[in-house]
Amino acid sequence: MFIRQTLVIVIIVVLIACCDFGNRSRAQKLEDSSQVTEIHSVLDAQVAAWNRGDIEGFMAGYANSPDTTFVSGDTVTHGWQTVLDRYKKNYNSRDKMGSLEFSDLEVTMLDKTTAVADGRWKLTRGGDTPHGRFTLVLRRSKGGWRVVHDHTTSLS
Amino acid sequence: MFIRQTLVIVIIVVLIACCDFGNRSRAQKLEDSSQVTEIHSVLDAQVAAWNRGDIEGFMAGYANSPDTTFVSGDTVTHGWQTVLDRYKKNYNSRDKMGSLEFSDLEVTMLDKTTAVADGRWKLTRGGDTPHGRFTLVLRRSKGGWRVVHDHTTSLS
Repeated sequence: MFIRQTLVIVIIVVLIACCDFGNRSRAQKLEDSSQVTEIHSVLDAQVAAWNRGDIEGFMAGYANSPDTTFVSGDTVTHGWQTVLDRYKKNYNSRDKMGSLEFSDLEVTMLDKTTAVADGRWKLTRGGDTPHGRFTLVLRRSKGGWRVVHDHTTSLS
Repeated sequence: MFIRQTLVIVIIVVLIACCDFGNRSRAQKLEDSSQVTEIHSVLDAQVAAWNRGDIEGFMAGYANSPDTTFVSGDTVTHGWQTVLDRYKKNYNSRDKMGSLEFSDLEVTMLDKTTAVADGRWKLTRGGDTPHGRFTLVLRRSKGGWRVVHDHTTSLS
């Protein structure tokens, strides 16, 4: 009789633990999904800024830090300001900026404050449509999610 | 007199706080530098494995998880096993594997368990020397540092 009662109690405890684990796992998934939505918003805001010719607005998606890194082709550039200057030099007219589009976005949460975003980019311009892939590493700070590392390739 | 004594105490407290901050900052730098050394060792071990024709040994540097991601050209591959199968298919002879070299490695610690490594790769083979850049995202688990995301480009 005592063994049966103990067994029942053990089963109840295990069931409660499982429920709690399930709840936490669901809570984690909900939290992840809300972070992924925030990251999508940051990237959407970057695209919207680019498409109104606002390079500073586009750059607001990057962490304003000398450590922010941008890998493109065979070149590594460090520093938010350096990347901004490069964009301003390379895209010094609305024609050169064209219309930017991100697609096939895949966001992976590594932990609560770090995520990786993979996707495709395409510029539609008068004369050409340069395009390629990107991998972004994002970190969450008080100001929200910001890109700290960008590896962009051109497949054109 | 009381004001002077208070001032002296305040200055001493500030100096102690500064020293402690300095020590912690130095300790952090030492810790970072030791983690960077560990990451270099993981990548060195990958290169050594590749150059003895041991693709499984090379793959030991990647997290053995279905979430491990490999971006190459316009292709995204998910999963450690899938990446291993792809390597085994694409490099099915010692001639094709050639001799691997990593250079210009830059490791950035994002926090205690996450780092980004940028660098160049080169394969020296009988007929050609394919080469390019890579960006690796690494995570530290109980087993040590492992690559969880790899964006490799070919510039050949």
